[in-house]
Amino acid sequence: MQAPTERTRVKRLNKRAHYDAKNVHAILDAMPVCNVGYVFKGTPFVTPTLQWREGSRVHWHGSSASRMLEACEDAEVCLTVTIIDGFVMARSAFNHSCNYRSVMAFGRAHKINDPAEKEARLRTFTDRLFPGRWDMLRPVTQKELKATTVLGLDLNEVSAKIRTGAPGDDEEDYALPIWAGVLPVSMMVHPPIDDPRLIAGLNAPGHVGAFRMG
Amino acid sequence: MQAPTERTRVKRLNKRAHYDAKNVHAILDAMPVCNVGYVFKGTPFVTPTLQWREGSRVHWHGSSASRMLEACEDAEVCLTVTIIDGFVMARSAFNHSCNYRSVMAFGRAHKINDPAEKEARLRTFTDRLFPGRWDMLRPVTQKELKATTVLGLDLNEVSAKIRTGAPGDDEEDYALPIWAGVLPVSMMVHPPIDDPRLIAGLNAPGHVGAFRMG
Repeated sequence: MQAPTERTRVKRLNKRAHYDAKNVHAILDAMPVCNVGYVFKGTPFVTPTLQWREGSRVHWHGSSASRMLEACEDAEVCLTVTIIDGFVMARSAFNHSCNYRSVMAFGRAHKINDPAEKEARLRTFTDRLFPGRWDMLRPVTQKELKATTVLGLDLNEVSAKIRTGAPGDDEEDYALPIWAGVLPVSMMVHPPIDDPRLIAGLNAPGHVGAFRMG
Repeated sequence: MQAPTERTRVKRLNKRAHYDAKNVHAILDAMPVCNVGYVFKGTPFVTPTLQWREGSRVHWHGSSASRMLEACEDAEVCLTVTIIDGFVMARSAFNHSCNYRSVMAFGRAHKINDPAEKEARLRTFTDRLFPGRWDMLRPVTQKELKATTVLGLDLNEVSAKIRTGAPGDDEEDYALPIWAGVLPVSMMVHPPIDDPRLIAGLNAPGHVGAFRMG
């Protein structure tokens, strides 16, 4: 992971910035939902999708027919992950904020062409979300692998931004009789809903109940 | 809101596409977190921020010193909002999916220059999240208004994409003894945490406990 570049250096509120792998990896690993930005015919596009990290590389995937994946291949992209941890409610509108953990990664996306490597990446994707699930599933077919594009981005030009804690009010505002504090939010995982066509007597495996995000 | 354009027409899985104001507005109103994509010096950037809708326009704001806001002004942007409702777990890796509600809006962002209009937009932003809060706060100053940029985007070229319900497995896979179903997720709001410097005896107003997102 390189030193901050013109693109990754956090300009506003730079005390919130982190450029180390530990912080970046922790955020990516906690939140599979990401947004991938790319330029298509001169205008910006942002597509929400799921990401997964392997070492110092982040991946995402989709249909081989996807406009997003086609436009990203060998092109500059910006991948962001954001976890909202709370609404920071101050005594002035101006000092309201959010507590969050976010990552912004830049670089040229590359396509995984080798079918065996593609399958290995998809296995990691599945098992990262639900450990052991890949081996429980009907095996992937060559046709399915062909219909799936996997892209990778090296985590080289990347930054994290983290805000935690109480509001930061103007000193003179602390005396005002206005409620201030933090309203925490998090992702909640609910009990699983069986597929209506599930074979009778089958129970959700442990990796379903163990799932957490954020 | 116009008919689908080359940018907004959902090409993949177009049964999930919606181009009507009702669906688009409901998603924007349910989730303040958005991602704004823009092009800066030829490469794509994606910045997470909060959005709020007023009529057929969506707004976001930030520091007047923000690179994002400067780059977005009078430029083509892509604003996305995504709500993840569940992980759809099928009998094959290929048929795994997510339940989600998302919006993608394209167009040229414009800056709100008139200070009174800017203040009105920020009041709506605050009161949309926490009804009645604006009038409880220390009033906004001219200096703060000047330090804040508010951008708007007309919801003209916009699409929503929604997936709900059970997995869609290959017909022959339904006979396999593999657990399948949906693992629902949602945003949870926790009890508020008082600011450590809060004046003794002040209680959180009703709009804090009433807050919901997603």
